[in-house]
Amino acid sequence: MKKLCIDSERLRSSMAAMSLIGQTQRGGVSRLALTNEDREARDLLVEWMKKARLKVRVDDSGNIYGRLPGTEQGLPPVVIGSHLDSVFNGGKYDGTLGVLAALEAVKRIGEAGVKLRHPVDVVSFTSEEGARFSPAMLGSGVISGSFTKSWVYDRRDPEGLRFGDELRRIGYAGEAVNRLKSVAAFIELHIEQGPQLEEANTHLGIVDGIVCNAWLEVKIEGQADHAGPTPMRTRRDPMVASARMIEAVRSITLRYEGAVGTVGRINASPNIPNVIPGNVQFTVDFRDAAEEVVDRAVQQFTTRATGIAREEDVDASVSEIWRMRPTRFSSRISAALEEVCHSMGYPYLRMISAAGHDSRHMASLGDTMMIFVQTQDGKSHCEEETAPWEAIEQATNVLLNSVMKLAR
Amino acid sequence: MKKLCIDSERLRSSMAAMSLIGQTQRGGVSRLALTNEDREARDLLVEWMKKARLKVRVDDSGNIYGRLPGTEQGLPPVVIGSHLDSVFNGGKYDGTLGVLAALEAVKRIGEAGVKLRHPVDVVSFTSEEGARFSPAMLGSGVISGSFTKSWVYDRRDPEGLRFGDELRRIGYAGEAVNRLKSVAAFIELHIEQGPQLEEANTHLGIVDGIVCNAWLEVKIEGQADHAGPTPMRTRRDPMVASARMIEAVRSITLRYEGAVGTVGRINASPNIPNVIPGNVQFTVDFRDAAEEVVDRAVQQFTTRATGIAREEDVDASVSEIWRMRPTRFSSRISAALEEVCHSMGYPYLRMISAAGHDSRHMASLGDTMMIFVQTQDGKSHCEEETAPWEAIEQATNVLLNSVMKLAR
Repeated sequence: MKKLCIDSERLRSSMAAMSLIGQTQRGGVSRLALTNEDREARDLLVEWMKKARLKVRVDDSGNIYGRLPGTEQGLPPVVIGSHLDSVFNGGKYDGTLGVLAALEAVKRIGEAGVKLRHPVDVVSFTSEEGARFSPAMLGSGVISGSFTKSWVYDRRDPEGLRFGDELRRIGYAGEAVNRLKSVAAFIELHIEQGPQLEEANTHLGIVDGIVCNAWLEVKIEGQADHAGPTPMRTRRDPMVASARMIEAVRSITLRYEGAVGTVGRINASPNIPNVIPGNVQFTVDFRDAAEEVVDRAVQQFTTRATGIAREEDVDASVSEIWRMRPTRFSSRISAALEEVCHSMGYPYLRMISAAGHDSRHMASLGDTMMIFVQTQDGKSHCEEETAPWEAIEQATNVLLNSVMKLAR
Repeated sequence: MKKLCIDSERLRSSMAAMSLIGQTQRGGVSRLALTNEDREARDLLVEWMKKARLKVRVDDSGNIYGRLPGTEQGLPPVVIGSHLDSVFNGGKYDGTLGVLAALEAVKRIGEAGVKLRHPVDVVSFTSEEGARFSPAMLGSGVISGSFTKSWVYDRRDPEGLRFGDELRRIGYAGEAVNRLKSVAAFIELHIEQGPQLEEANTHLGIVDGIVCNAWLEVKIEGQADHAGPTPMRTRRDPMVASARMIEAVRSITLRYEGAVGTVGRINASPNIPNVIPGNVQFTVDFRDAAEEVVDRAVQQFTTRATGIAREEDVDASVSEIWRMRPTRFSSRISAALEEVCHSMGYPYLRMISAAGHDSRHMASLGDTMMIFVQTQDGKSHCEEETAPWEAIEQATNVLLNSVMKLAR
């Protein structure tokens, strides 16, 4: 089969247009799930899908699909895509690149007049980041059966707004009948969000799986009191207890080569300079390729936190609020990707993703694989996030030709 | 001179009525400066002052004065009072007790037909807490010349609203001509906000001065990055650096007997579980009766924070954003208070306040003194804050009779 190449300039301008929606001062994007910015991005995507003559449908989690029909009735689709939502002050590539690369691939197939037996769905999943509604990957989680719709609809953002209400508000509460069921293949193109490809001086990654990831929520109750007249000896200070526990997260993580442990969120109450906080809450994110390493880190942290709470005379609870078990992707799809890379002369690296992605859920609906694109300085989820354009172009070409191979 | 006693039930019901304004679920109050709740509390106070036939005036910082005229023209007033604003989820006593006890004292003097040579002003100062607009004690700071009006008007709350605009919005931007100038005496009755009186089983404290207090703001810049694919060895994590610095605050404070050090506020950005924060900011509050101890603690913390920042490869800045030098109150007024306590048979403790109060600024306008009221379990600035009623009654009687002695 002859290899096609994408229209690189067209992809570049669609990325530029999309990155204006929710653009931040320093060139990133803040496009949290189900906000007005998310709606605007969705509207633009739907407009582009229709212009490309894709048949658009929206499911009851707000996942958007644009379909290029296949020549043979009744075959499951080959699905490609990612998500449009971002973290606060996030990067303009992240999931957006995977959605627009998929759209570019399908446009190119249509223009070239290539007929494929399987339909091809371009997908944009709802609320992948978990930055507004927790946990992450809600849209793909519903269609894969990991979450029920009613549970997801009841998730609340930090201001108490419900996922279901916000989804209706932005006009993207579609029909359950539109959900993806089984898929012939799912491929997600995504920036790497780490330094491995750059360190290996390689543009592309073929991703064999996703690490195990556990999120803990730690709540510490002490005694709110005036910062002046309360003697040090009588304090029950949850801030000092938290500080000691945050240090413990790192020291425990460093016991395991390759594991990572992060405290990304902390909130103290009442959070004013001259009051000893009454309570402090923070999250812990542990990840490793091996689930047993994550288990051990969680166990050791919980024991240590309990000990610190006793020493500091505060009450602490440690709850695991979310876990992503390790995922293995499909060797059938990776073989197809490798073949395309070889035939196009693109070097690549085999790797494991340390970040969760919608692919994690999609792997339960059918053969799944990810393509990673090199990022600069390992920076992601921040305004400085960027990727070499040549890497983006190569990865999208691999996506395009792999879809043609798999949907044939 | 015959001793008067207050109408205890009337004070109790005015306290109860005022505590309904901004009342929290667990019986505290949230009445931050220049909010609608603050306006409502001010309106009620002004209504009560007028009903007690006091002549009400408001100055350009929103400080409210209610005057009982003296019999002799041109004498400076004896001033009594405190503040009506609270911290978020604060207690219903705090400054409110000082204002309403002062009002009760003046009502009693009026009812008893006692004629005094000096006028007596009941005062409620604006924005004592520093919980919405920083720093604390803005209203008394302007009349004492510690702050200029224009600087205070430019203070902004966390949402960016200006003090001056908010003061006008609630209708309490009065005239500069109404400011207090010199005073014959100032007495502030306030709850202790600490455990000393309870530990000594004594209802009343006569306060000889206020500790030295320094506030630091610590800003740590690291590198925001994805919590998964960023290896531990390449991280520049401001959260871990902050944790180590918060521990250092305590260990440095513990070198000095009687000193206190507190981290009450912390904010991380972007503050989500799966992103290493790009920056973390927190405050440090150091206090001691001796200014040189505060100096040494600030110096040692700054050195330690700089060292930790270097080790963690983050950028840290430590700025002293506010300092209250130690205050000595008036021996003339304390002698008057002691005499009243002795003649009424009330035991008391001589003490130093570890909390800042408007009295700190008032001491530069004339002879100043504070009376402390025992609190329960040393709790203050929290919803559980309470005080034995007998202590309140005794303290208000001391205030009443001291005013009569000083304004004679």
